[in-house]
Amino acid sequence: MDPACPSRTVLRHLTDRWTPLIVTVLSGGSRRFGQVRDEVGGITAKVLTQTLRSMERDGLVSRTVTASVPARVDYELTELGRSLIEPIQALRGWAEAHAGQVLDARASWDGA
Amino acid sequence: MDPACPSRTVLRHLTDRWTPLIVTVLSGGSRRFGQVRDEVGGITAKVLTQTLRSMERDGLVSRTVTASVPARVDYELTELGRSLIEPIQALRGWAEAHAGQVLDARASWDGA
Repeated sequence: MDPACPSRTVLRHLTDRWTPLIVTVLSGGSRRFGQVRDEVGGITAKVLTQTLRSMERDGLVSRTVTASVPARVDYELTELGRSLIEPIQALRGWAEAHAGQVLDARASWDGA
Repeated sequence: MDPACPSRTVLRHLTDRWTPLIVTVLSGGSRRFGQVRDEVGGITAKVLTQTLRSMERDGLVSRTVTASVPARVDYELTELGRSLIEPIQALRGWAEAHAGQVLDARASWDGA
């Protein structure tokens, strides 16, 4: 595998700690910042801002500002972002289905 | 989403920087340490040792030591590890198929 292959940097963003969870939340439709933060859970506002900006830069998320007072900002998956839902859900589904086996393996490894 | 859900810690390991690439290499069968390092590319021996140990602890990889001189160590996906190949390949496939679109989005974001 070529370490310089562009798909490697793309894969790294897809598989950072929060992108899979944000894709899952936004797969339910557009959300405001606070809604994304609450639905993801356990993420700081700073890290959420950085991750959303990185996803915007990668063309996965669009950010719409409505000039109300105060201004309203909505985040939504782009078409490219929506195409990512299926592979992300496949990986999350694996994690949910096999978490028990992994935790058992960890317990016996730690107990060995 | 519950931040304390066990599947979240499992997902984090599956989506660290190297696990997807190591699963891909081992999907081709058992490998020795040096072979994994060479086929993955761009990974240090220290990080590969840590990641393989974490994958062993998670029950995804088995490590077989053959008492030859010098001792021979082979790494192989377990049944649980092999069940991970499909979702990992789906995500890697997405990254390879869409790397161009992501890089274009980054270029226009950076140029904006």
